[in-house]
Amino acid sequence: MKVQLHKIPTTPPDTISRKEAQKATKAYAKKIGQYHAKLLAQKKYNVLVIFQGMDASGKDGAVKNVFKQCTHNGIRVHSFKKPTDLEFAHDFLWRVHQQVPAKSELVIFNRSHYEDILIQWVHGWIDDQKRADRMEAINHFESLLAKDNHTIILKFYLHLSKDEQKIQLTQRIEDPTKNWKHNENDWKERELWDKYMTAYEYVLEHSALPWHIIPVDKRWYRDYLVSKALAEKLESLNLQYPTTQK
Amino acid sequence: MKVQLHKIPTTPPDTISRKEAQKATKAYAKKIGQYHAKLLAQKKYNVLVIFQGMDASGKDGAVKNVFKQCTHNGIRVHSFKKPTDLEFAHDFLWRVHQQVPAKSELVIFNRSHYEDILIQWVHGWIDDQKRADRMEAINHFESLLAKDNHTIILKFYLHLSKDEQKIQLTQRIEDPTKNWKHNENDWKERELWDKYMTAYEYVLEHSALPWHIIPVDKRWYRDYLVSKALAEKLESLNLQYPTTQK
Repeated sequence: MKVQLHKIPTTPPDTISRKEAQKATKAYAKKIGQYHAKLLAQKKYNVLVIFQGMDASGKDGAVKNVFKQCTHNGIRVHSFKKPTDLEFAHDFLWRVHQQVPAKSELVIFNRSHYEDILIQWVHGWIDDQKRADRMEAINHFESLLAKDNHTIILKFYLHLSKDEQKIQLTQRIEDPTKNWKHNENDWKERELWDKYMTAYEYVLEHSALPWHIIPVDKRWYRDYLVSKALAEKLESLNLQYPTTQK
Repeated sequence: MKVQLHKIPTTPPDTISRKEAQKATKAYAKKIGQYHAKLLAQKKYNVLVIFQGMDASGKDGAVKNVFKQCTHNGIRVHSFKKPTDLEFAHDFLWRVHQQVPAKSELVIFNRSHYEDILIQWVHGWIDDQKRADRMEAINHFESLLAKDNHTIILKFYLHLSKDEQKIQLTQRIEDPTKNWKHNENDWKERELWDKYMTAYEYVLEHSALPWHIIPVDKRWYRDYLVSKALAEKLESLNLQYPTTQK
């Protein structure tokens, strides 16, 4: 399936107001908290939520707002950074495999194994063939998790406009409480915007497990769509508190 | 310092009402969320919160209620279970050391290295000399974390009465949403109550870093005291958002 990101809006449709969305988000967050309690108790499934997106696309904010009503027990966020020397000395999925959820766990990947075919391809550190090999490996890997350990995988591509990124990155310079997020390098990566879009289109087209493409220029719409997708997925599992095991 | 647990109340004093406590707890939780955001940004300190207590003393509930306003990013709960074969093949602190917080992290231990001088001593798997050696090792270990990596360590002993434990364990049988917590073995351990109290008194007396002893028969008082202690500790650090690093 051909994906053309520039044709997909990064802003909310007129059919939903901010107020309506926020009300619904709150209700979804509550449901997610309740499903999460059952997930912990039942020990049947486990959940992997993957957030990918350009710098300042709001990955941290999604983590903060969607899981608000979940206890901290059994939830873990893993932020993938530049690999260490030890990690580089292994295949690209080695460090990722160590972080996947165990039964009953909900693990959130802030960036993920997809960086290994995004940033690496954009900078020319891997060629098209290597990218294709890795994409195939990722599809096999995600299939293993899903089939062998009942892992529910939800993948969100946070779709940001180039203009909104500029606003967000500028805020990091101007707002003292956001200074700590400021990184000169983000501005350099921004120059590679078009190539990143091509790289994301490749990922979205070639993933065996589908992605949710989330327009994120308005953060409230991001929270609404991500919460909705997660709550509906968890609902479909028909999670139950197990009755007494003697 | 001599500790006599049977002389320390497990219920709240008359000086505070449930309503007052819950209001204060809510305010503390909000502050803890704000301090946590700064902890993440500043990357100077890291925090280790340890919960110990008898079965059904409310460790999970404390985790759920005290950190309610904290994002999931940079927070991790580690529940220590029966050691694996690999863990048993090492010194008792080996598996613990792997789980301590990195800079900016807040890690919660649900049970901890103290089990290695509690359950193990109660059951006679280690003798008094071994217990003393391990207590010394724990004091050195906690000192290392505090001195070498700015780790702020808060330790909470959740002080439950034997009567209230019975009520709580019985609920796990009667309430279908709590069945999953029911474990026959908890009732067996309950028979060793007095020996456990002696074991806890030893820990409380010999720890170099002091413990907060929290009366937990009323869960709202537990949440109030733990939140208060944590909020005050975080406040004392004078955490700050770092200003722009070019």
